[in-house]
Amino acid sequence: MDRHKNATPSTTSRITHQGFPGSERFHVPGTLYPEIRVAMRRVSLSPTPGASGNPQANEPVVLYDTSGPYSDPKADIDVRRGLPPLRSAWISQRGDSEEAATLGSFYARTRDGDVKHAAIRFPSPRRPRRAKSGANVSQLHYARRGNVTEEMEYIAVRENLLRDEIAEAREQAARAGAGHPVFHRGQSFGAVIPARITPEYVRAEVARGRAIIPANINHPELEPMIIGRGFLTKINANIGNSAIASSIEEEVEKMVWAIRWGADTVMDLSTAEPIHETREWILRNSPVPVGTVPIYQALEKVGGKPEELTWELFRDTLIEQAEQGVDYFTIHAGVRLAYVPLTARRLAGIVSRGGSILARWCLAHHRENFLYTHFGDICEIMKAYDVSFSLGDGLRPGAIADANDAAQFAELRTLGELTRLAWEQEVQVMIEGPGHVPLQLIKENMERELAECFEAPFYTLGPLTTDIAPGYDHITSAIGAANIGWYGTAMLCYVTPKEHLGLPDRDDVKHGVIAYKIAAHAADLAKGFPGAQRRDDALSKARFEFRWEDQFNLALDPDTARAFHDATLPADGAKTAHFCSMCGPRFCSMHITQELRKLASEQGVDEERLRAEGLAEKAREFRESGAEVYVAARPPGER
Amino acid sequence: MDRHKNATPSTTSRITHQGFPGSERFHVPGTLYPEIRVAMRRVSLSPTPGASGNPQANEPVVLYDTSGPYSDPKADIDVRRGLPPLRSAWISQRGDSEEAATLGSFYARTRDGDVKHAAIRFPSPRRPRRAKSGANVSQLHYARRGNVTEEMEYIAVRENLLRDEIAEAREQAARAGAGHPVFHRGQSFGAVIPARITPEYVRAEVARGRAIIPANINHPELEPMIIGRGFLTKINANIGNSAIASSIEEEVEKMVWAIRWGADTVMDLSTAEPIHETREWILRNSPVPVGTVPIYQALEKVGGKPEELTWELFRDTLIEQAEQGVDYFTIHAGVRLAYVPLTARRLAGIVSRGGSILARWCLAHHRENFLYTHFGDICEIMKAYDVSFSLGDGLRPGAIADANDAAQFAELRTLGELTRLAWEQEVQVMIEGPGHVPLQLIKENMERELAECFEAPFYTLGPLTTDIAPGYDHITSAIGAANIGWYGTAMLCYVTPKEHLGLPDRDDVKHGVIAYKIAAHAADLAKGFPGAQRRDDALSKARFEFRWEDQFNLALDPDTARAFHDATLPADGAKTAHFCSMCGPRFCSMHITQELRKLASEQGVDEERLRAEGLAEKAREFRESGAEVYVAARPPGER
Repeated sequence: MDRHKNATPSTTSRITHQGFPGSERFHVPGTLYPEIRVAMRRVSLSPTPGASGNPQANEPVVLYDTSGPYSDPKADIDVRRGLPPLRSAWISQRGDSEEAATLGSFYARTRDGDVKHAAIRFPSPRRPRRAKSGANVSQLHYARRGNVTEEMEYIAVRENLLRDEIAEAREQAARAGAGHPVFHRGQSFGAVIPARITPEYVRAEVARGRAIIPANINHPELEPMIIGRGFLTKINANIGNSAIASSIEEEVEKMVWAIRWGADTVMDLSTAEPIHETREWILRNSPVPVGTVPIYQALEKVGGKPEELTWELFRDTLIEQAEQGVDYFTIHAGVRLAYVPLTARRLAGIVSRGGSILARWCLAHHRENFLYTHFGDICEIMKAYDVSFSLGDGLRPGAIADANDAAQFAELRTLGELTRLAWEQEVQVMIEGPGHVPLQLIKENMERELAECFEAPFYTLGPLTTDIAPGYDHITSAIGAANIGWYGTAMLCYVTPKEHLGLPDRDDVKHGVIAYKIAAHAADLAKGFPGAQRRDDALSKARFEFRWEDQFNLALDPDTARAFHDATLPADGAKTAHFCSMCGPRFCSMHITQELRKLASEQGVDEERLRAEGLAEKAREFRESGAEVYVAARPPGER
Repeated sequence: MDRHKNATPSTTSRITHQGFPGSERFHVPGTLYPEIRVAMRRVSLSPTPGASGNPQANEPVVLYDTSGPYSDPKADIDVRRGLPPLRSAWISQRGDSEEAATLGSFYARTRDGDVKHAAIRFPSPRRPRRAKSGANVSQLHYARRGNVTEEMEYIAVRENLLRDEIAEAREQAARAGAGHPVFHRGQSFGAVIPARITPEYVRAEVARGRAIIPANINHPELEPMIIGRGFLTKINANIGNSAIASSIEEEVEKMVWAIRWGADTVMDLSTAEPIHETREWILRNSPVPVGTVPIYQALEKVGGKPEELTWELFRDTLIEQAEQGVDYFTIHAGVRLAYVPLTARRLAGIVSRGGSILARWCLAHHRENFLYTHFGDICEIMKAYDVSFSLGDGLRPGAIADANDAAQFAELRTLGELTRLAWEQEVQVMIEGPGHVPLQLIKENMERELAECFEAPFYTLGPLTTDIAPGYDHITSAIGAANIGWYGTAMLCYVTPKEHLGLPDRDDVKHGVIAYKIAAHAADLAKGFPGAQRRDDALSKARFEFRWEDQFNLALDPDTARAFHDATLPADGAKTAHFCSMCGPRFCSMHITQELRKLASEQGVDEERLRAEGLAEKAREFRESGAEVYVAARPPGER
């Protein structure tokens, strides 16, 4: 077991490394910084078969890509070397940080000197960087000074997904008389989303504290991304070993697997040895920001006894992790001594692990939470590496009955107070949120967060909208996540089907990520994020035109879509035939609409005239065409 | 293949017939009608281990039960005989209907006389009943005359789930100082839900047209249920064979399987022979209402050519199905000739199968939809058997881009007009709704439906909140379903993971039903349906107290919850130990809260005083208890 647990990836490792069907990963350069290369995914589509035999091309669809080079079959991946440090030059050229001669953490120095761990250590270590004395290397600091960083331009290009160019192409197509899908007006509850994301907009949102760029200077492998309600809704996937399970290799693969399906960040929540080395392997191979809950490792260092935690030990843990490159820390500084009794009459008490560790510490010592009293000291560390705060909701409700109670909102108010303190020190902040909340109480969570935390980005766990479906909590919570994302939550922390029951495996991770991509995208559509509907439109057009391969390739999960189709009609011919796998060859749904469109364009009539005049002619034509196909592309299992 | 398709259930059939763990099916008598026996499920719970060794009992939880006698291991099930006709006496004693000497449908008479079908015919046929000349046997007719029927009292008892008795018990417990979970106030968007559902309330809602009781007099096996926004939110599961798949036995089992997991009605959407006999087997064994889309069978009768459909043939099909006992018919009478061109510029045209059949008929003949012109004639048939209308949304949007467009809302207005016509004839009506709708446009659907269809119950398919996740459309649509249910939709038509891709199998049916039970329950919680939170509270309490078996047994799907738990920690001991399968034995979440509660009750202090005074003492106690367990019942894979 231990042998297995410590297994590190070899060069022949079976880390996932394959492309998406019909897709290629490509790069777009910056303008302010021509050397940046923003990764995206392009799905090429087959043409629409024309009525008279001349097919119409379908524009490729450009997708936001979180998967890193792992989805590029041509990429040279070696997990023992790690990903290329694409931000290194950006960071060093700023001149406000320097390589440290020694590790800042006592624990890390000891650990690194211990030959016992040599075999599991990441083989290509890098010296840590830290801010020069008195400097602040946070993106918030740069933003406030008016500097647009490489990270900011990267993000602007990334969030736009070339939609300027494509909008122009669409307009041309519309003028040429092609179909014109409706882009619905969004409802954004006060979020202001510009038609085009500029680097200056990114800077301004970061400066305002309304968005964060989690990007530790010791995580140069990271492809910059942003968390804020004026941007695409993001999702986080939790990974990490436990006392029971998993090798280092498995955890690295879990990260790669999670980002393949769309995780924008991962949190490494390992609670079992070797925590330090597992994290190092994940960071060196992760193109997405990595978050942690440092109190978990601190607790392991004191043998699992919360009351033995000290500020000094915790501080050393923060430095250890910051120098490895962790991009954001969950800090439960809002679990104040006075709030603990407010949980006494709850149905489910305190369910946050971090929250209960701190609550116990407070009660055992009858002292104020040391994360609260040392908050200023923590800020000093954060700004020396640009680690962002994820202010933890240690008192979040763990049952529907406990939603929106006094304990939860007392803590939220404190998180707002801490947000101000962090901003004074120019440290980036997001706020964690619940939990278990019934639908009608979700909006209050968002509104209070915006008001009391001054619009700092909200980062919620679900919320689960009912307690009665263990085994399906990715669904109970995707419902809540879609709603709170629509209301303004910037990042949604996934929940897997194993929630409350056991440890998520690879399949659970995928199910959790897909459910949350659905929630995040539903939220983006609802907010009216510019261009979000393009993928829906392209997929629906492919569906309507029986371009099965395109439909699969545009799906969140092409593999499952294809497998489900093949389960009913496995023949390859079925993927090109103009009928679907349910109704059989006699039925086909696109004809009537195409006929009507043809009639309209030939006669140059609008719909009003068509309605008034066109139908007599249409009727004759239809009777004559006789046996022609018709009917819907829906399975008989649907009405 | 054909041989297989026609296979009928034998007496040794493997139809699912087993109880739920820790549960029993029991019956509650009526008051107005002491002879009615309303089926419910009771989950017994184990006691909470007391701090000082004296355990506290936990009240059993009473659940709404759709599963019929199939979940009662003691029930005598013989699918070749069918379920006992529990409503027969109620119906015959009303004296307004009579057994027919001959079948009313020409097709049914011919079919029944054809020896070819003898082998697949249901072996225990019953003579059909119909209203006496000039009579109306609809529940709406009775309700308008002030009659409270047996069905109405059955429903009242069923919807209450004994909550009066239990509320009293809870109040006593609260007075005795036990925990007091918060029951959240709902937000019901104008739905008025009384604290107690009385038979008179049921009658009034039916009379008002705001709820329907689908209950054909030829389906006496049915356990009465109601569809209306002043009641629990219901879900429908679609089943039915197709040109490709499934035997009669498989379809009967699919029905039993769907109701086991919570389907409140099923629709038989069979499109392949033997349609007539398959439906008969389903009806005779179904304790839930069965709906159909009669145009599907009519189309088969004319060889799949929509333009050859005639009113006479359709009329004969309605009578055929009504005399078998179908409880509601989807009738696409709102697909008017003039609306068809409105779909011409849609991205996905017409996606409803029924809608496109009728659209084609209209265009081919350039005549108004014969379901619209013969709507009065259809009402005459409906009221002779008490078949309810489910007015079909043949022009519903099949893509996000097409949501809430002119075609959809033109049809909805017509459905309102038809609702009035049906009500004039005292025929029950519900209205079908979309489809594919982004989150921010869902509410408009509900609001327009209520306004334009005069609060007739709404029955929606999802809606799907994005098009990009084929393979996961039970999730994309459960998000929309939870929201529209909250806004007031009375019944949610499920979507399975195979939507758009293939034919749902047994697993898909279960996944679809569970996703929709989640959506419906989330909606009930959000509306503040009295007592809905009890199941959540009981499950969360079990979770908090590590009563694993109770947690499983209260889950929507006990089998999956148990299996997921066992996958991590299979030992039986793990299900009674005070730790969860994720954090291991060192961690346990309930202690801190229990300690605080104990302190509070011993000292008789409220939370304010506890906060002010209690903590110094608490701190000492905690330090002394030293190595005592603590921390959260959350997996390390979560923050």
